[in-house]
Amino acid sequence: MQKNGLLGQLIQNLCCLPGVGPKSAQRMAFHLLQRDREGAKQLANSLLRAVDEIAYCQMCRTLTDTDICNICSQPLRDGSILCVVESPADVWVVDQATVYKGLYFVLHGRLSPLDGVGPDDIGTELLQQRFAQGEVKEIILATNSTVEGEATAYFIAELAKKHNIRASRIAHGVPMGGELEFIDSGTLAHAFSGRREMA
Amino acid sequence: MQKNGLLGQLIQNLCCLPGVGPKSAQRMAFHLLQRDREGAKQLANSLLRAVDEIAYCQMCRTLTDTDICNICSQPLRDGSILCVVESPADVWVVDQATVYKGLYFVLHGRLSPLDGVGPDDIGTELLQQRFAQGEVKEIILATNSTVEGEATAYFIAELAKKHNIRASRIAHGVPMGGELEFIDSGTLAHAFSGRREMA
Repeated sequence: MQKNGLLGQLIQNLCCLPGVGPKSAQRMAFHLLQRDREGAKQLANSLLRAVDEIAYCQMCRTLTDTDICNICSQPLRDGSILCVVESPADVWVVDQATVYKGLYFVLHGRLSPLDGVGPDDIGTELLQQRFAQGEVKEIILATNSTVEGEATAYFIAELAKKHNIRASRIAHGVPMGGELEFIDSGTLAHAFSGRREMA
Repeated sequence: MQKNGLLGQLIQNLCCLPGVGPKSAQRMAFHLLQRDREGAKQLANSLLRAVDEIAYCQMCRTLTDTDICNICSQPLRDGSILCVVESPADVWVVDQATVYKGLYFVLHGRLSPLDGVGPDDIGTELLQQRFAQGEVKEIILATNSTVEGEATAYFIAELAKKHNIRASRIAHGVPMGGELEFIDSGTLAHAFSGRREMA
C-alpha cells in the first residue's frame, strides 16, 4: 500500500525519532491523521521553530532559544557554584530533581580518546575562561558514572585546582529505595568504600 | 528550566504522539536538536504536507493523498472481492501480510449503539452503492474480533445478502506459532468450535 505516497514518507520520517520503529511510526501516523491533525500541525510548527531558533547558551552551552539561557540569566542563581554535566538533558534532569540553585556548564560529550574526543571538543576553553574570571568558587562534577565520565570528571577537577577552585563529585552508591539484593556488585562495592559515619 | 521556552513547547507537543509521555518526549527533543536537526526538519515538513493533503479515498475511504488511492486505482486488482476493515491501518496490515489481491473498504469505526455510532457513521451508504453497482461478488469481513466488531460484521453480511453477495468472515483461532498454554480461554473455545477436518 502506497509505500511511496505521503503516508509512507511520513511513517519513514517518524522513524527518525529515538525508540520509534516502523510499527510505532505507523501507529503514530494513523493516529495523527485520523484523530489529531491539529496536534500534528502544532508539532510540525514547533519542530521547525525549535530547529531554527534553538542554539547553545553562550555561557553554559545548554540548548536555549535566547543568547543566554534562562538559568544563566536568573539573578537569584548562585554564580559561585558551577555544576558540570555531559548534556543539556542532564541540566534538565538535575534542575527538576534537586534543590541545586547554582549555574551549569554543559560539556556536550565526554573525554574519549578512542573516539577522538579530546579536551577541545568538550568546551574546556570556555570553561577555563569561566574559571579565570574568578566568580566560580566551587564546581560539582555530575558527569555520568562511566569510565569516560569518571576520566572527564578527574580531568576537569585538575583544571579547577589550577585556579584554586574546589571540585566535588556527586555521590555514587545504592539508589534511594533500592534493595541490596538487586544492586549490581560494582555499585555495591562503591557504596561500601564510600561509606559515611552516622551522626 | 525554561518550561515555557521553545524547548518546553516542543516537548509538550511531542506528547501528542501515541505512546509518548513526558520522559520520551524529552529524550526525542534532545535527540533531534543535538543529533538530527535535518531529520527534524524533514519530519516537520512531512507532517505539514500529510495533514494538508491526505484525505479519504473516494472509493474505499482509506487515507490517501490522491482522489482514488493506489490500491483502488490498480488495474491488476480483483474488483469482485471487497475486504471490509475498521481502519486504514488495517488496510496497511492486511496488504503487507496476506496475498489478498482484491479491493478494500474502510468503515472508520464499528457499530456501537452505546457510543452513538450507527450504520450511517460507518459509511454503509457508500458501501451499499458499491454493492448495487454489481461488480462486487464477494466480501471478506475483517473487522476486529471484539463484540462490536462481530456485530458490525454480521450487520454488513446481512446487507451483502440482500444484494446476493457472498460474505465470509476471516478465521479466528490459535495464532500461528502460538502455544496452547498461553492462549486465552475464549480463543481456545473458538478454535475448538471452529475446528476443520484434516485432509
